[in-house]
Amino acid sequence: MSVDREAPFGQRILLLADRLAAWSETPDGLTCTFLSPAHIAVANDIAALMAATGLVVTIDAAANVVGRRASRSPQAKTIIVGSHYDTVRNAGKYDGRLGILIALVIAEHLTQNNVDLHFDLEVIAFSEEEGVRFSTSYIGSSAVAGLFNPSLFDRRDDNGVSLADALRAAGHNPEAIVALARRREDLAGYLEVHIEQGPALLAESLPVGVVTEISGNSRFLVTVEGEAGHAGTVPMADRHDAAAAAAEIILMVEQRCRQPDLLGTVGWLSVPDGAINLIPGRCELSLDIRSGNDATRKSAVRNILTNIAGIAKRRGVTAANTEVLDAAAVPCSPRMQEAFAASIARAGYAVRRLPSGAGHDAVMFSGLTDIGMLFVRCGNGGVSHSPRESVDVRDVDVAARVLLDVLINFNPA
Amino acid sequence: MSVDREAPFGQRILLLADRLAAWSETPDGLTCTFLSPAHIAVANDIAALMAATGLVVTIDAAANVVGRRASRSPQAKTIIVGSHYDTVRNAGKYDGRLGILIALVIAEHLTQNNVDLHFDLEVIAFSEEEGVRFSTSYIGSSAVAGLFNPSLFDRRDDNGVSLADALRAAGHNPEAIVALARRREDLAGYLEVHIEQGPALLAESLPVGVVTEISGNSRFLVTVEGEAGHAGTVPMADRHDAAAAAAEIILMVEQRCRQPDLLGTVGWLSVPDGAINLIPGRCELSLDIRSGNDATRKSAVRNILTNIAGIAKRRGVTAANTEVLDAAAVPCSPRMQEAFAASIARAGYAVRRLPSGAGHDAVMFSGLTDIGMLFVRCGNGGVSHSPRESVDVRDVDVAARVLLDVLINFNPA
Repeated sequence: MSVDREAPFGQRILLLADRLAAWSETPDGLTCTFLSPAHIAVANDIAALMAATGLVVTIDAAANVVGRRASRSPQAKTIIVGSHYDTVRNAGKYDGRLGILIALVIAEHLTQNNVDLHFDLEVIAFSEEEGVRFSTSYIGSSAVAGLFNPSLFDRRDDNGVSLADALRAAGHNPEAIVALARRREDLAGYLEVHIEQGPALLAESLPVGVVTEISGNSRFLVTVEGEAGHAGTVPMADRHDAAAAAAEIILMVEQRCRQPDLLGTVGWLSVPDGAINLIPGRCELSLDIRSGNDATRKSAVRNILTNIAGIAKRRGVTAANTEVLDAAAVPCSPRMQEAFAASIARAGYAVRRLPSGAGHDAVMFSGLTDIGMLFVRCGNGGVSHSPRESVDVRDVDVAARVLLDVLINFNPA
Repeated sequence: MSVDREAPFGQRILLLADRLAAWSETPDGLTCTFLSPAHIAVANDIAALMAATGLVVTIDAAANVVGRRASRSPQAKTIIVGSHYDTVRNAGKYDGRLGILIALVIAEHLTQNNVDLHFDLEVIAFSEEEGVRFSTSYIGSSAVAGLFNPSLFDRRDDNGVSLADALRAAGHNPEAIVALARRREDLAGYLEVHIEQGPALLAESLPVGVVTEISGNSRFLVTVEGEAGHAGTVPMADRHDAAAAAAEIILMVEQRCRQPDLLGTVGWLSVPDGAINLIPGRCELSLDIRSGNDATRKSAVRNILTNIAGIAKRRGVTAANTEVLDAAAVPCSPRMQEAFAASIARAGYAVRRLPSGAGHDAVMFSGLTDIGMLFVRCGNGGVSHSPRESVDVRDVDVAARVLLDVLINFNPA
């Protein structure tokens, strides 16, 4: 292996990311969903890499790969540094895995240099965060955080396989998941490094940033019912076109969310059984509203629902809304924010604090222990969930050095 | 059978429409597509009904049911009165079939009363007009009008069955279709009675109306390509949301087409692989623009395409348009319009002339002979292509008497 002298950690981490990306469910591109053969192969490879660095490795009942490095102090609490190794379909190589590999390489460095920390270090590669296979997110981190919901065992994938059967088929015991929950008194914190998945650091030419909070998120499914009709016979003034009402809703959401710290997206949109010569009688769409400030988000949701009702009334259609998510914003602990900020400053970079619009495994730990997150700059305009996802080797090196500095300087006592 | 003394034709016709609607491909509702078992059963039943009225019946190679009643004059030309017996999925009972049954009952009346006409009368139940099974319309009427395109023989339905094989399986000889074409010199006209499939006659409380022309129709498929992204991380100002651009296009089309004799519809709309947490990178939609006036339609199409380009440019997305139809308006013959108008006036009703926004079998005959169409008022706001499609028995009776009056008084000489 050739080592980039200016970015030794970064170089090694990107090579490892390429190595993990070689396993995929698809011949082209990268898809690695919960307990697929590719997913199991990646878990085994991460376990082997962890063992080679001197970590004590287990793959737990939720398919998390846990590597432990004990402190010399017998009373030490534990700091978990984690992220997820599953991916979306046709994914990039860094979403989730970058955070695992940075932690792994830093653990290796600590061991090679015989550094003792003030806490036991656990590097955890969580099995599931993206929610692709079973339409539920955070399977791995919810188990470790004690938030796993056993009613999910009966949930089935597109092939009718239940979550419990998928676990058993991979050699795991579903009944053992409840015992994975960590005790509050044993933990000193949870840290996660993740790609930003957005353009903020890119725009400001900064390698890394401190996450202030993970945005709150409201989601709705909206069904507009109008009146189907023949495209050639119903006068424009007599129409109750469900797609035209949906169009007005989409532009209203876009307009309403044009303010700081607010995002609104209609990501799913369909005219069921639509035809070129039929006035749409039904249109289905989704709403996703996010903000780091819960009051901002709630106010936007209220306005948007009121406006939808107004659009429906004016057009003589109905619009039924079903709330499918109402997640409050999750703040990162001030102590962990300050720890990352101090290390970034010591590394010679400006400290940029920014919210995370996407959810992360850290969310699961927010009620249990202090959480902190470090974002790494994305290339290609900040694109993620895409093969075009990219990071710069020097940024990855900075992130690794910042994490190392945080760990060396952190004392839970 | 009980006969409504005030609407004897209408009563009999509605009972026959119920009888034909008993055959369907589906356990509930009415679906009768080209050469399905239900469709073959309906053809045989129409043939039996025609034979019972004294018509000379053949089922031709395109599965049209043709009932002929010769004039006593050996030199007589032919007037065809026709419409189609296939249906859309989950159809009403009257679209197409009403015109067949009115012609059939009037032929029966002429024979029972020993009336000689100035022409041979052919009642034709066309096999296919809706385009459901093979995504091509007018299979039956194009054959009789000499416009059948033999390249369609290789077209396949959703089960991979070719049109030629479907014909053969039903006992028809595809090679014989070309010989079904009528000669121009043998024809004196083509007449069709059809439900309006719109609300104009309902709004003016009139039972029937004279069709002035069948609207021209432009159709496009539009693909908008923007930039996919994470719904939680890309600032609103940095987005290139394909669905938001499509929404703007939909409202622009609706606005531009709010003028007399113009209709614009986006009937098909989809975000492929859309997800609640993804900014749409691609959105596909259809455009259907209609007018009785070709200049009006062309001008609207030009404006709409220009506006689409402007919306795309402003939003930083691309919009690719593919024209899939550019059909000129088809005028009904002045002579046939006047014949219907005179008969309506003699029946004591105001003469309402109106365009047809929908296509009809009559279109196939417009270059071959004089065509004329009579519309019958629809109930339920004018709904069609729906089980809610309805007609009033008295309106049907008026339409039958008007057709009878036209036939008795028409002399091609």
